[in-house]
Amino acid sequence: MITEDLQILIDNKTKPPGSLGMLETLALQIGEILGTTKPQLINPHLVVFAADHGIAKEGVSAFPKEVTRQMVLNFLNGGAAINVFCRQHDIHLQVVDAGVNYDFESHLPLGKGKIAKGTASFLHGPAMTASEAELCLLKGETVVTEIALKGCNVIGFGEMGIGNTSSAAVLMSLLCDLPISDCIGRGTGLNDEQLLKKQNILEQAITNYKGSKDVAELMAYFGGFELLEMTGAMLAAGKRNMVVMVDGFIATAAYLCAYRMDKNIRNKVIFCHESEEKGHRLLLAHLQAKPLLGLHLRLGEGTGCALAYPLLKSAVNFLNEMASFQSAGIANKS
Amino acid sequence: MITEDLQILIDNKTKPPGSLGMLETLALQIGEILGTTKPQLINPHLVVFAADHGIAKEGVSAFPKEVTRQMVLNFLNGGAAINVFCRQHDIHLQVVDAGVNYDFESHLPLGKGKIAKGTASFLHGPAMTASEAELCLLKGETVVTEIALKGCNVIGFGEMGIGNTSSAAVLMSLLCDLPISDCIGRGTGLNDEQLLKKQNILEQAITNYKGSKDVAELMAYFGGFELLEMTGAMLAAGKRNMVVMVDGFIATAAYLCAYRMDKNIRNKVIFCHESEEKGHRLLLAHLQAKPLLGLHLRLGEGTGCALAYPLLKSAVNFLNEMASFQSAGIANKS
Repeated sequence: MITEDLQILIDNKTKPPGSLGMLETLALQIGEILGTTKPQLINPHLVVFAADHGIAKEGVSAFPKEVTRQMVLNFLNGGAAINVFCRQHDIHLQVVDAGVNYDFESHLPLGKGKIAKGTASFLHGPAMTASEAELCLLKGETVVTEIALKGCNVIGFGEMGIGNTSSAAVLMSLLCDLPISDCIGRGTGLNDEQLLKKQNILEQAITNYKGSKDVAELMAYFGGFELLEMTGAMLAAGKRNMVVMVDGFIATAAYLCAYRMDKNIRNKVIFCHESEEKGHRLLLAHLQAKPLLGLHLRLGEGTGCALAYPLLKSAVNFLNEMASFQSAGIANKS
Repeated sequence: MITEDLQILIDNKTKPPGSLGMLETLALQIGEILGTTKPQLINPHLVVFAADHGIAKEGVSAFPKEVTRQMVLNFLNGGAAINVFCRQHDIHLQVVDAGVNYDFESHLPLGKGKIAKGTASFLHGPAMTASEAELCLLKGETVVTEIALKGCNVIGFGEMGIGNTSSAAVLMSLLCDLPISDCIGRGTGLNDEQLLKKQNILEQAITNYKGSKDVAELMAYFGGFELLEMTGAMLAAGKRNMVVMVDGFIATAAYLCAYRMDKNIRNKVIFCHESEEKGHRLLLAHLQAKPLLGLHLRLGEGTGCALAYPLLKSAVNFLNEMASFQSAGIANKS
């Protein structure tokens, strides 16, 4: 019903049918999620989950582990890319410490999501316990619940965590049955030799894993705290009929986990961009997802969401503001 | 000098080098055009040139010719897609009557660019005289001069004109030595039969043409008034070191003409999107242009420029506002 009403509205706008391309699909989807032919995007939020990764000590990243903490402070000081783009588009930025290897001062405006000071390395054993994994999902949900209470109906998710493309790549490989070599990329900037090392380490980790293909078990074994909190947050936002913006490779891996837990999330999410990180294109294809942007970004932090957000607004705006053929007295297709 | 300074600034921002992808290229280009490491986009404008086409009467478009006039009135009433997107991004919209087949009331806020009430059909003869073509370039320049006097340093160009994909396709075919079948598309929505008819008509027009491959001669013979005024406007904006945003297929054909007249325009333009109109992808490839967006738009009006504009702002903003590794005390790549 709402779908048909929305489609009629869209088709009667003063433009050739379909000529606004993906914006038309987007307007339809947002209308469906919010359950109205006059959707409004209210109090947009972007949540960046940050955590450290035991696997980082095995040498899978171009940057030292300390950068996770340093970048969290950079977020809080307003100096990172995501700060700039959120300011530009009036998106409220919330940084959540999901498990950074540092005791932040308690007065800092940091979301409370801490599980531990980083995961264990998953090279020889699980990154976290089953309880910790469950706690991640709940903490992610809590973050969203608090934000939803502020009237927010559109929310994006990003991350910061040196080493987290490794978690995402292994989860992708095992959940999608794809070779790890197709799932890994240069992350923040590995050279050829370092990339090969990353591949070897992750292959070894997969060989060492003796568990099942159950998504919850895989998430606990290979996950990052930020990745799993994102999964919990996405599931919660989807259940609340919020418009969910998915960022790059790690966020899409978190979405993959969420989707395996609850297929209803599918229609609630908007894939914001295709990252330059190699595995992302393949993962998006696996998910039959068509992202809005393709700017060769590979930064994370939710930057793809923030940059795509004006397109969501454009979709809503054309639906609400454009004249119809009838109202403008314009001849339709001959 | 400015290029090196900009690159150092960009590389020292708190992100892995290159991780902002096309936004980094964009920041560099905008800094180069405006000649500063602290670029600001000032008083953005979007100009829509509108005109009618004699070729439309041969049956090359899905919409009747009257739609050009009706859409101009829709622009003036604020009801078209371009109005919505310009409002969203605080872009000043200027509509110019380059040659619509209608006498608009003189009190309307319509830019004065009128050459005649539409071109002649180029099926059996030239669309306009050489003097009219020259006048188009000058009127386009005048429009830009007046806008530049308002302090504007970033300007996009769009168009409205039933039949104008035919002009653009023939100019592309002859200037790029490509078969017309590769250059035409469905425009505002032709079906297979109508598309074949369009191809036959344009092939006939090309066969009937006995002139040279000189760009000025081709522009007069096959051009539209709005297309040529856009060419003049782009050349003028480039000469004034304004940031020039190029919209879809017709605007890119206008750029092609501008480039053949003055190669210096190349570094001043930003290709905003890749249109769904078939010839556009090929034309962009021919120009080695990598557009910012690919949303399957095929509307024209400058909508791609308006939708891409926030990305230009993001590029400028990250350059001006992000912390550097030094200022944020963050470890660089190991």
